[in-house]
Amino acid sequence: MQQEIRIGIVTVSDRASRGEYEDLGGPAIREWFERALASPWQPVSRMIPDEQVEIEKLLAELADKDGCCLIVTTGGTGPAKRDVTPEATAAVCDKLLDGFGEQMRAVSLQYVPTAILSRQIAGIRGSALIINLPGKPSAIAECLDAVFPAVPYCIDLIDGPYIETHDEVVKAFRPKHAVKKQ
Amino acid sequence: MQQEIRIGIVTVSDRASRGEYEDLGGPAIREWFERALASPWQPVSRMIPDEQVEIEKLLAELADKDGCCLIVTTGGTGPAKRDVTPEATAAVCDKLLDGFGEQMRAVSLQYVPTAILSRQIAGIRGSALIINLPGKPSAIAECLDAVFPAVPYCIDLIDGPYIETHDEVVKAFRPKHAVKKQ
Amino acid sequence: MQQEIRIGIVTVSDRASRGEYEDLGGPAIREWFERALASPWQPVSRMIPDEQVEIEKLLAELADKDGCCLIVTTGGTGPAKRDVTPEATAAVCDKLLDGFGEQMRAVSLQYVPTAILSRQIAGIRGSALIINLPGKPSAIAECLDAVFPAVPYCIDLIDGPYIETHDEVVKAFRPKHAVKKQ
Repeated sequence: MQQEIRIGIVTVSDRASRGEYEDLGGPAIREWFERALASPWQPVSRMIPDEQVEIEKLLAELADKDGCCLIVTTGGTGPAKRDVTPEATAAVCDKLLDGFGEQMRAVSLQYVPTAILSRQIAGIRGSALIINLPGKPSAIAECLDAVFPAVPYCIDLIDGPYIETHDEVVKAFRPKHAVKKQ
Repeated sequence: MQQEIRIGIVTVSDRASRGEYEDLGGPAIREWFERALASPWQPVSRMIPDEQVEIEKLLAELADKDGCCLIVTTGGTGPAKRDVTPEATAAVCDKLLDGFGEQMRAVSLQYVPTAILSRQIAGIRGSALIINLPGKPSAIAECLDAVFPAVPYCIDLIDGPYIETHDEVVKAFRPKHAVKKQ
Repeated sequence: MQQEIRIGIVTVSDRASRGEYEDLGGPAIREWFERALASPWQPVSRMIPDEQVEIEKLLAELADKDGCCLIVTTGGTGPAKRDVTPEATAAVCDKLLDGFGEQMRAVSLQYVPTAILSRQIAGIRGSALIINLPGKPSAIAECLDAVFPAVPYCIDLIDGPYIETHDEVVKAFRPKHAVKKQ
């Protein structure tokens, strides 16, 4: 039986969570996955203020109780005092994958020199991959386009469900031995 | 009232601080800022041996007591035993900004393959940005040219003074909403 | 008197160490060094399961007792639960050199988008440089070709032996003052 694919989508923002500001990041992520994923999936959407302990609890819950194999965050990755999403992510992960942050910054640098201010990271907690995306909606798609080809195989390696994509949107890469025949 | 712009310039070198060796890094940094900055600013220049605890104390003092919004170091970032500038920097920072080191190494790699030996980092302490630059004077300008476009906006985000540059030397980038009209 | 050049070659693999799987990584590394090094050298080859504490002990022993100036590992750098080579490497190193991992991932990204899943690192322990290479034999040569030009000078800086290469295979880079005349 195919495992269910649940994806946590977490908007980290003081203002959005107080309702002072419309959340644009969360919907932008959801729309990207709707276009990209061929496998059936379910979003688990959450909004939370920039409080490290609360973010940690939420990420752990999405991974451990809600059964998300992938959790993406938007917001809270800059140099400002209230930006603590990477700290919360690092605190709950077993392993960090530095290549994600490096590639997301390299891609964003093609658009703005301030990409180096982003502290986005990614890591593994149990059987979930957690990725920090930027806060800005347009930058979200740039980052997902760049890193997502590696995500389905990563989730295979941590014993998550087999994710298939629409190749014309984003082409998942797996070594030959890891590709399932239909 | 415009906040004062004070920039700490720290030469880390056993030999230079014993006077056995002329400090070329500190003056190269100062000369770069004189060309690049349009805002009035004041250098706070220091020289110190490669001793981690002393470097930590100096960096903290420049940020907390001397009111520097930006502190740049030169020297002590290699793989040798006495090279401890990144360790001292990490120890006094609240947040690290990995994108700076990544971009400085990527730029230096265009000149020498040994750029991967550099352990340069950058981070935030309170309202100060601390950046490790290379020891070699010619590499200093290469690194500042590459990362400085992101520095003024970074300092805005940590509640520091508004820094303006001479665009023909280095063009500071800010998102539209962050640009002050004159 | 010229110091002896001993190079530790460590295959990290549960299956290879149980004999269920032929070790291809270790021989691929050895073959690369045979082609690349002009200086006389000795391999110190080891095979070990994916157990963090055992890997730590082995790396420490190769550096401290066996007098290896360079130790390269293959395997155990992915996101899976049993992959712990970077954790073991970080635990025994005095200093990490982030530029190695960055450059190896950047090079591997030219071949496969899943290069961002690699957690390869490098660091210094005493007078030994430790580098994590990929598990896949073809990727080993790509990574060594990319980073090795910086390795001999790195080993000079940590007081190791002077390593010379066959320039037509890989050209070691040293600043002029560090090049020994024959």
